[in-house]
Amino acid sequence: MRILIVNPNTTISMTEKAAQAARAVAGHGTEIVAATSKNGPASIEGHYDGAIAVPGLLLEIRAAQVAGADAAIIACFDDTGLEAARTLAEIPVLGLCESAVITAALLAQRFTVVTTLERSRVLIENLVVRYGMGGRAKVRAADIPVLDLEDNASGALVKLKRQIELALAEDGAEAIVLGCAGMADLARTLQREYGVPVVDGVSAAVKQAEALVSQGLTTSKRGSYAAPLAKPYTGSMQAFAPESAGP
Amino acid sequence: MRILIVNPNTTISMTEKAAQAARAVAGHGTEIVAATSKNGPASIEGHYDGAIAVPGLLLEIRAAQVAGADAAIIACFDDTGLEAARTLAEIPVLGLCESAVITAALLAQRFTVVTTLERSRVLIENLVVRYGMGGRAKVRAADIPVLDLEDNASGALVKLKRQIELALAEDGAEAIVLGCAGMADLARTLQREYGVPVVDGVSAAVKQAEALVSQGLTTSKRGSYAAPLAKPYTGSMQAFAPESAGP
Amino acid sequence: MRILIVNPNTTISMTEKAAQAARAVAGHGTEIVAATSKNGPASIEGHYDGAIAVPGLLLEIRAAQVAGADAAIIACFDDTGLEAARTLAEIPVLGLCESAVITAALLAQRFTVVTTLERSRVLIENLVVRYGMGGRAKVRAADIPVLDLEDNASGALVKLKRQIELALAEDGAEAIVLGCAGMADLARTLQREYGVPVVDGVSAAVKQAEALVSQGLTTSKRGSYAAPLAKPYTGSMQAFAPESAGP
Amino acid sequence: MRILIVNPNTTISMTEKAAQAARAVAGHGTEIVAATSKNGPASIEGHYDGAIAVPGLLLEIRAAQVAGADAAIIACFDDTGLEAARTLAEIPVLGLCESAVITAALLAQRFTVVTTLERSRVLIENLVVRYGMGGRAKVRAADIPVLDLEDNASGALVKLKRQIELALAEDGAEAIVLGCAGMADLARTLQREYGVPVVDGVSAAVKQAEALVSQGLTTSKRGSYAAPLAKPYTGSMQAFAPESAGP
Amino acid sequence: MRILIVNPNTTISMTEKAAQAARAVAGHGTEIVAATSKNGPASIEGHYDGAIAVPGLLLEIRAAQVAGADAAIIACFDDTGLEAARTLAEIPVLGLCESAVITAALLAQRFTVVTTLERSRVLIENLVVRYGMGGRAKVRAADIPVLDLEDNASGALVKLKRQIELALAEDGAEAIVLGCAGMADLARTLQREYGVPVVDGVSAAVKQAEALVSQGLTTSKRGSYAAPLAKPYTGSMQAFAPESAGP
Amino acid sequence: MRILIVNPNTTISMTEKAAQAARAVAGHGTEIVAATSKNGPASIEGHYDGAIAVPGLLLEIRAAQVAGADAAIIACFDDTGLEAARTLAEIPVLGLCESAVITAALLAQRFTVVTTLERSRVLIENLVVRYGMGGRAKVRAADIPVLDLEDNASGALVKLKRQIELALAEDGAEAIVLGCAGMADLARTLQREYGVPVVDGVSAAVKQAEALVSQGLTTSKRGSYAAPLAKPYTGSMQAFAPESAGP
Repeated sequence: MRILIVNPNTTISMTEKAAQAARAVAGHGTEIVAATSKNGPASIEGHYDGAIAVPGLLLEIRAAQVAGADAAIIACFDDTGLEAARTLAEIPVLGLCESAVITAALLAQRFTVVTTLERSRVLIENLVVRYGMGGRAKVRAADIPVLDLEDNASGALVKLKRQIELALAEDGAEAIVLGCAGMADLARTLQREYGVPVVDGVSAAVKQAEALVSQGLTTSKRGSYAAPLAKPYTGSMQAFAPESAGP
Repeated sequence: MRILIVNPNTTISMTEKAAQAARAVAGHGTEIVAATSKNGPASIEGHYDGAIAVPGLLLEIRAAQVAGADAAIIACFDDTGLEAARTLAEIPVLGLCESAVITAALLAQRFTVVTTLERSRVLIENLVVRYGMGGRAKVRAADIPVLDLEDNASGALVKLKRQIELALAEDGAEAIVLGCAGMADLARTLQREYGVPVVDGVSAAVKQAEALVSQGLTTSKRGSYAAPLAKPYTGSMQAFAPESAGP
Repeated sequence: MRILIVNPNTTISMTEKAAQAARAVAGHGTEIVAATSKNGPASIEGHYDGAIAVPGLLLEIRAAQVAGADAAIIACFDDTGLEAARTLAEIPVLGLCESAVITAALLAQRFTVVTTLERSRVLIENLVVRYGMGGRAKVRAADIPVLDLEDNASGALVKLKRQIELALAEDGAEAIVLGCAGMADLARTLQREYGVPVVDGVSAAVKQAEALVSQGLTTSKRGSYAAPLAKPYTGSMQAFAPESAGP
Repeated sequence: MRILIVNPNTTISMTEKAAQAARAVAGHGTEIVAATSKNGPASIEGHYDGAIAVPGLLLEIRAAQVAGADAAIIACFDDTGLEAARTLAEIPVLGLCESAVITAALLAQRFTVVTTLERSRVLIENLVVRYGMGGRAKVRAADIPVLDLEDNASGALVKLKRQIELALAEDGAEAIVLGCAGMADLARTLQREYGVPVVDGVSAAVKQAEALVSQGLTTSKRGSYAAPLAKPYTGSMQAFAPESAGP
Repeated sequence: MRILIVNPNTTISMTEKAAQAARAVAGHGTEIVAATSKNGPASIEGHYDGAIAVPGLLLEIRAAQVAGADAAIIACFDDTGLEAARTLAEIPVLGLCESAVITAALLAQRFTVVTTLERSRVLIENLVVRYGMGGRAKVRAADIPVLDLEDNASGALVKLKRQIELALAEDGAEAIVLGCAGMADLARTLQREYGVPVVDGVSAAVKQAEALVSQGLTTSKRGSYAAPLAKPYTGSMQAFAPESAGP
Repeated sequence: MRILIVNPNTTISMTEKAAQAARAVAGHGTEIVAATSKNGPASIEGHYDGAIAVPGLLLEIRAAQVAGADAAIIACFDDTGLEAARTLAEIPVLGLCESAVITAALLAQRFTVVTTLERSRVLIENLVVRYGMGGRAKVRAADIPVLDLEDNASGALVKLKRQIELALAEDGAEAIVLGCAGMADLARTLQREYGVPVVDGVSAAVKQAEALVSQGLTTSKRGSYAAPLAKPYTGSMQAFAPESAGP
């Protein structure tokens, strides 16, 4: 089984960290293939970056599907482009936020997602509501620029731990979800330190991808995610015309 | 006051129809400026088309803002790219679906949105829920390809009327929302025929845009819609780097 | 276009302030007509005052409709009598709370309504939920008797600002809604001071009224708001018999 | 214990029917006192009738409280004026809809309310949502003018039974709530005929009133239902000035 | 009328306290019969204790029904086994939490439940949501082991009062619900002290039981609560085979 | 990795079918251990059977944990005893309904669960709501006694297919969830026949169990699922005293 981890941020070091987290939990016989988008923002911080990142992301998923990937994971906690990717691809596509919150919900009645920037907090709250966990999860922002997570000296970990402690003290959190792909390496350590489950989205998504593939399940092509209809695409988006989209 | 109507579908005849609907309701002193995206799909039918249409759409909004537009309207009922546009722009940005459902909610306790394709039905249902009208509105699809609305001989009107009649008979609809920019010309006729309010998203959005501008209100830049942070954008998306984004 | 602003509080100075706010945003060709209820409480503070204010309010709307008004606005943030007025009138009727929260929702993902008295807080929370914004808006009470807003020396502004500051600091508010007709004159100043959109219900309602009238839309008479049935009314309410109600 | 049944419809025969239903379930030592509003519509059908009925209704509750009533029941399934009455009175006030749906919820997971006119259907749906039963209850209208329930030859029973049968066949109803005070006499017969619990609002409200009084519980005067503040009332509403309102 | 109070905790002193509270509010002609489960945990603290307590509880309800009880009350605020009991019994079955929250909702728009242990807090929150009061009620835990309520010297009352005070100051609570059967004796005193309604679940359930019986209402046997189907039960659960279940 | 499948129905043939489905999807290195409860009903049909089945179920989970199981799956679609099991066990515990609906939600925006008996329909609807999928999933009952699924000649498959066809035609279902452990063998065939994803709860739960174990995640012991407190258990339930519960 081959699973694509595609980073819609164009920063390669983030991809590496996500791929490493993915490989750490991948099952026997699962190959993790990592790709970094070549077209888009260095980091996704809010709605604008997210929207611009989607075409480059879809390009990588399309290429990976042609090359034989069995599932794809979008390595950004905002689940950027997830619905478009599910429409495009024949293979299952997983998002980090969705995978992480359904995982946390198997472990705890109440949990808190700790993300990076305040501007992403409500965006993730809205995702959590859409995924049906609005009554069970809170979202906190730790005020960490995404790329600071690549830099050990940035004080990012201190800020992150401060929010975890507040989640335990004030939110009644029974588990923690790390709300950024770039935090994948911290989950085990924090879990040990705080004595509650700490869920990383990359790991969660890898296991959901494996789960779907080994059950012979893929995205429904009836209704919402029906394959794109053939039609002209113009200008710089010509390359995305769906008649050339997939198997 | 100058209001931009931007069509994220690259089909110019649709833009013309929307602009005409907009001008029909625009207030004294409002200038309607219409733009058609130059980069993207000929019509937006589902999540994939929608996602690819966004960058081209944002380009038009950015250009119009630089050129002095006071508000922008995204002329697609899926509210494609609405959150990204609000993040990018300093001027208010309106979506057709959001504008139409809040308008219908001022007129009726229960209403039905009639859209084009089944693949867009759940997408619009999800928008309706997000806009707080999930308990008040139903969504029906009339099985009309978007571009058929440009063609009088396509039988589209018959299908549309069939769904309106079912909405009145089975949904308890007290008003109807036309769920596609391409239906803008039909609202008045259908309202007369069925004796219930028929809301067109383009008209509704123009009036909401005028309302915001004349109240001196624009998108909050605190939190969710804070202006994009300066950062490198790579590949074909370089032109979208946010440091060159705003006025 | 003639828009009635009817104050269901019987205090004329409040009507004047609302009319002034209305005129400040009214479009070219819109005439604002103000009326003060002659029958009811000097101020509406809670459910009891609100219920008693309704018949006097309906009388003014009926009279204005006969006199040719194109729309009516109920100048009380509790949206007192809104559903009854929509049932009575053939012209559109707008409430301040409904108009303000749908306006704020076009500008911000999260916002806070600041109202006067604690006894009105839950009442407004319930309206906000009914209007579909329960997940997006918080409501705070500033502990200001309604009539104190008429008195510059009352310290009302200080209390109001205290709650706005708490909304920004603790609620994650991205915009503020002023939750009382008597605060209409403060919106622009507060918006400048706090750097977030500050929405006034009177202004918002005027623009919604204009929007509906210029779109040729009025309250649906199918279902919930069907015109009152002719029937005997007895005692002091005889004057309200619906057979004499219409235009 | 003395419980007031006040009919906000001014039709005395309806009051008699409600009082009879009340007496049939009243406990040992409970005296049922019936009053008919002297000011308002002959029957309440929709929002307008309901709003005009409230002052006359409140007058009766105030008088009964002064005369020593221990609790009051508003004998209209729309729960007309319920919140105002709770604000006014020191004694508990019960509504038929609220009492009936909480009773049905003790007996069944899913149930259907059958009311009279289509124009009241959504109004009751909204009440059901406000009382927390939106996911458990459906509402159907039997197309019966309220006063037809006073007339045995009107065919009202046939229409009512038709909707009960549809509720059982299509809604998965496990119990039925009769959604009009004028149906109180039919509950036992229908329950026997259909083999599911049939809840009458008058009976349910009497038992809730007794329950509160014998527990020493009454409406909270903290927050939402705090007693009306003393203030001038003008015009025909002068008699309602709250300084003369309570014991 | 004979009402069974069955304590699913096997601690007899708790049963006595509940029976005493029940008798204090029981109507003329109501006989309270108390039973203590003979099979299960000494106290129910969390999901595990609750699940194990159910069979012993059902045994007592079955026996009481055979012996002629008219209704049964499960004397544990977690509403342990309530749905199973309603399926088993022909007579109405009441839970403390459900009875208490619907009672509080008749008295106040917002209220707080104060329970014993943190591990029960979310369990009760989930019940409150299921009973439709999620938007109106908060739940607080006072950190009191259940059996400490049997011991006057345990400091339990101080902890309970601390949470009531916080509920009034921070939650906007307009009424308090005591969230444990073992607190039944404190309601009246606390109500006097804090000046807001204080609802005890045992009292509330007794009055709901009386209400249902005197209305001739019992659990629907259509759908969710249909009588158990005859079938083999094996091992230590043989005694529970439903063919021997009925009256 | 060793995963326990415990059947809370005491019918061994059902266990075998579930174990077979489990083994068909289990990953390399996963050992499936099946156990059948020795204490309880032959089949779980409704709330009563479900409640009585729990202690026998917990006994098996406790034994398996002591014997070294890494995760446990409760092989009943009602998720009988799931919360109690999570409280008891140190290892992760999965339910079929929860696992299946979160899996379906990764594949489709809207889906329908087809269960066996009408009496289980609302029970499963309530689970679906609790798991956050109330707005996305419908539940249908095929009127099949649970044990008929063990009998090829019973016509069960015809009834099941009838409901799947209705789900596709009327519910807008984009995927199907089989709502009974006894249907595990049918998923692949039905998926091929209807061309939409068909999710089986047993398979889904196995993959979720593997996912949690390989991520080093287990049920939070903070808050809702804290380990049972030591205390006396009496009567036939003495064997369940929690001081002997843990590893």
